[in-house]
Amino acid sequence: MRALCIGLVGPGLIGKALVLQLDQQAAYLATQMGLRVALVAVANSRRQLLAPAGAPLQGAQDWQERLQAAGDPVSLPALASHVAAQRGPGGVGVIVDCTASDEVPDHYAAWLRAGLHVVTPNKKWGAGPLPRHAAALAAAREGRARLLAEASVGAGLPVLGPLRDLVETGDAVTRIEGILSGTLSYIFNTWAPGQAFSSVVGAAKELGYTEPDPREDLSGMDVARKVVILARGCGLKTELSDLKVESLVPAPLREGSAEDFMRRLPEFDAEMGARAEAAAAGGGVLRYVGAVDAAAGTASVTLQTFPAAHPFAQLRGSDNVVSFATRRYAATPLIVRGPGAGAEVTAAGVFGDVLCIARGAAE
Amino acid sequence: MRALCIGLVGPGLIGKALVLQLDQQAAYLATQMGLRVALVAVANSRRQLLAPAGAPLQGAQDWQERLQAAGDPVSLPALASHVAAQRGPGGVGVIVDCTASDEVPDHYAAWLRAGLHVVTPNKKWGAGPLPRHAAALAAAREGRARLLAEASVGAGLPVLGPLRDLVETGDAVTRIEGILSGTLSYIFNTWAPGQAFSSVVGAAKELGYTEPDPREDLSGMDVARKVVILARGCGLKTELSDLKVESLVPAPLREGSAEDFMRRLPEFDAEMGARAEAAAAGGGVLRYVGAVDAAAGTASVTLQTFPAAHPFAQLRGSDNVVSFATRRYAATPLIVRGPGAGAEVTAAGVFGDVLCIARGAAE
Repeated sequence: MRALCIGLVGPGLIGKALVLQLDQQAAYLATQMGLRVALVAVANSRRQLLAPAGAPLQGAQDWQERLQAAGDPVSLPALASHVAAQRGPGGVGVIVDCTASDEVPDHYAAWLRAGLHVVTPNKKWGAGPLPRHAAALAAAREGRARLLAEASVGAGLPVLGPLRDLVETGDAVTRIEGILSGTLSYIFNTWAPGQAFSSVVGAAKELGYTEPDPREDLSGMDVARKVVILARGCGLKTELSDLKVESLVPAPLREGSAEDFMRRLPEFDAEMGARAEAAAAGGGVLRYVGAVDAAAGTASVTLQTFPAAHPFAQLRGSDNVVSFATRRYAATPLIVRGPGAGAEVTAAGVFGDVLCIARGAAE
Repeated sequence: MRALCIGLVGPGLIGKALVLQLDQQAAYLATQMGLRVALVAVANSRRQLLAPAGAPLQGAQDWQERLQAAGDPVSLPALASHVAAQRGPGGVGVIVDCTASDEVPDHYAAWLRAGLHVVTPNKKWGAGPLPRHAAALAAAREGRARLLAEASVGAGLPVLGPLRDLVETGDAVTRIEGILSGTLSYIFNTWAPGQAFSSVVGAAKELGYTEPDPREDLSGMDVARKVVILARGCGLKTELSDLKVESLVPAPLREGSAEDFMRRLPEFDAEMGARAEAAAAGGGVLRYVGAVDAAAGTASVTLQTFPAAHPFAQLRGSDNVVSFATRRYAATPLIVRGPGAGAEVTAAGVFGDVLCIARGAAE
């Protein structure tokens, strides 16, 4: 049986959900796929815990306590060496970055060059500086290792994998459009005519759908990072700063506390209401959309009007949707839709990438 | 550079589209993925043509003429041996079955056991007898080879790959529903109130959307095969004969010529019209849907009524749609939608599976 040794950096909500899934699927992977999966390392921002492949952490009830209590000071190079050593000959070593850190991706190139695969939902790599992005891809080729980040867009929804297939089989992507934030999807899907925009934002905040400071969602930067990742998936050399991003945070409210923001947001209800009414007058609805115009080489995040019959107008709840128009999918696009956030589906997206690597490594 | 040697069985519309795509992408695969792709064998039902990896057929303008004129009598075991020999050490050998034959899948187990991968859009394998299905999967494990059939459901749309990810990451599929026939999608999407059903079928036939005998579409057997493939993807032991299939061919019209069928179909317009009116009276529309109830272990193909706001009611043209409800995707399902037929997108689905294998084999 082949060893699949995993090192996890960032045991937060997504990371913990992944550990649970690894534990629940360990027997299945052994019997059905001949894979002996072992979580052999976990690191948070301060400490790390290394374990032998024979006593993997995913089966241990107390790995979190052990990490807090007895873990060594964090050293990501040492963690990587441990994963490489534990996988053994013919085994597969994967480092999973479940942080939202901008520093952890600095290590990807070294890991990949050493033949360790990297899987991440961390948008800071895919939307980070282009030189680092290119260096990691080059290191992956050099180390014959893979770097997959399916869960960085749409969580567990199949988005980046299908995009890679389109590109590598020779299709020409013309345009990608998507509603890529569950929060903003919910806000615009539930905003009924006549309602105050600020009250919809307030309700979403109450339900825990927004960040503690809703401006983090309304600024559009989270959507913008996903758009950059999609643009680079089309082969564009897009930096985050190249994007035209329409922030939904009124300019006078960009400073100050979250409480001040929520208190003053109603001052701008008339302005937002007028846009919604204009859309409704034409039989349409507003949606906050990220778009890549692959032909023109541009990308944007804007509030747009869609006719009622458009798939984006028909979205419900906090679903994400991504639409790929290509040379082959010209008359009607390829569309993927569904829940695009949440720890469990995001962890499943990460796990899917790990299995994609492990299946291939059967050769 | 690693060799990716392909043998193609069935150079019909899909097979020819695949050869073109392989030729167009050969340079990209070499520079970007370090893969030297070579179509080293092509067989139709009578003849086969074998070529060395150094002079691959996908680059030859005259491979079709050479196959017709000078090909050897077909021998699939000899074709497989040739692919295995040409791939060389460290290389990847894939046999692509682009036939609709029920006999070619009889060879899969032998090929897989010999370490040759198999990729196919042929529904006769996935929906064929369970013992043959199980034998091929066992042979794949034994030969450490892979058997992928993404293009057998929804053509190039990501359907079976995402289903595999759901299952292997430990999600529990509860229900899969889909509009899986482009022909029947078109017929029900365009059927306007008051129109005669027979005239919609006639128009679809004129446009070339149906088989020459539209009963092949209306019988539901093509949809049923796809449903069996989806059911088995959930781990069910479903045979085609287990399915409840509602044929749209009126019982008195099941015999006789296609011309007789089209002439007499209007006799049944009142019956079909009444069903559409009943659906419309409740604010719904009719859709021809394949469904897997994974919890109950059953599967069916039936004409159903959907409310106007349902994603299936909103389908247009000849698009396919597949909806996965699972333990993780419980509140709203994961939905994939888009063109699900056509030689070019089907070939791209096959090519995607070939690349999935080749990427993995990089290890």
